[in-house]
Amino acid sequence: MCDDDAFQIRPGEMAITLPEACDAGLYFIGRISTPWKERTACPKNPAEARDPCQITLAPAYVPGLRDLETCSHVIVLYFMDRAPRNIVVQKPRHYGEARGVFALRSPARPNPIAMSVAELVSIEGGTLTVRGLDCLDGTPLLDLKPYFPSIDAHPEAVVGWRDKENS
Amino acid sequence: MCDDDAFQIRPGEMAITLPEACDAGLYFIGRISTPWKERTACPKNPAEARDPCQITLAPAYVPGLRDLETCSHVIVLYFMDRAPRNIVVQKPRHYGEARGVFALRSPARPNPIAMSVAELVSIEGGTLTVRGLDCLDGTPLLDLKPYFPSIDAHPEAVVGWRDKENS
Repeated sequence: MCDDDAFQIRPGEMAITLPEACDAGLYFIGRISTPWKERTACPKNPAEARDPCQITLAPAYVPGLRDLETCSHVIVLYFMDRAPRNIVVQKPRHYGEARGVFALRSPARPNPIAMSVAELVSIEGGTLTVRGLDCLDGTPLLDLKPYFPSIDAHPEAVVGWRDKENS
Repeated sequence: MCDDDAFQIRPGEMAITLPEACDAGLYFIGRISTPWKERTACPKNPAEARDPCQITLAPAYVPGLRDLETCSHVIVLYFMDRAPRNIVVQKPRHYGEARGVFALRSPARPNPIAMSVAELVSIEGGTLTVRGLDCLDGTPLLDLKPYFPSIDAHPEAVVGWRDKENS
């Protein structure tokens, strides 16, 4: 399950050989339904993703939702399993500089776990309606967590390379 | 590796039977060094965790750090492998109400992936010094990402059950 698919790297990119075996395992605990069936149709980032999406938990996990309805925002961890895991330096196809994967939010990463903060609209049974996700329809869910502004909100944070690109 | 260890659940808690097989695999890409060798010694939450910690990547992944030094805050995903994964309704030992695991930041969860936002102090080679982590010494690292305030900072977020508890 940790196979490293064949792929072409672009000039300036760097690929590594991943370990032969994985170190731990994940359960897919549900699925995310979105309007986007192909990667090219997805919003560019969660700030542009205003369409409501549904997150449906497998039945066994539904009791774990108790009290989540009192939260306005939910941290959603999901698995992006359609990208290579071995490109540690990456370059967008048509522009930009090569950057380290850990300075990017690219889906292509050694452990393709996405973290998005979504607004919780409602919970009905095992299905949440949220706003702010930008992933493909059918994406596997890994975890939900309450968003605590006291530890998770850092409005003063700076991403230097992005600011330089935009200036 | 997805074995469900035997454990005692407390009154009001609910355990489930986890699937026999995992759906995807993780690589441990580094380790986090902290001052805390036992769970009872860890800070209660990241807001109280001001001691600097070191994150050291395995050598193959170090090129992936390029440009991360321009970021003030880093999203750190790590694996909390010392807690049961099958308790979907949880109750603290000495107080509190039973709540769903997805309304809590407890390390005991189906996929024990923690998300913490850390201040980046410095990067030297493959080692980052950060502030704001509260995990055990030796915790396996899964991912690092840049923190974008435009999508990750939601100071207005509410955790209703917590506000009620504190009022």
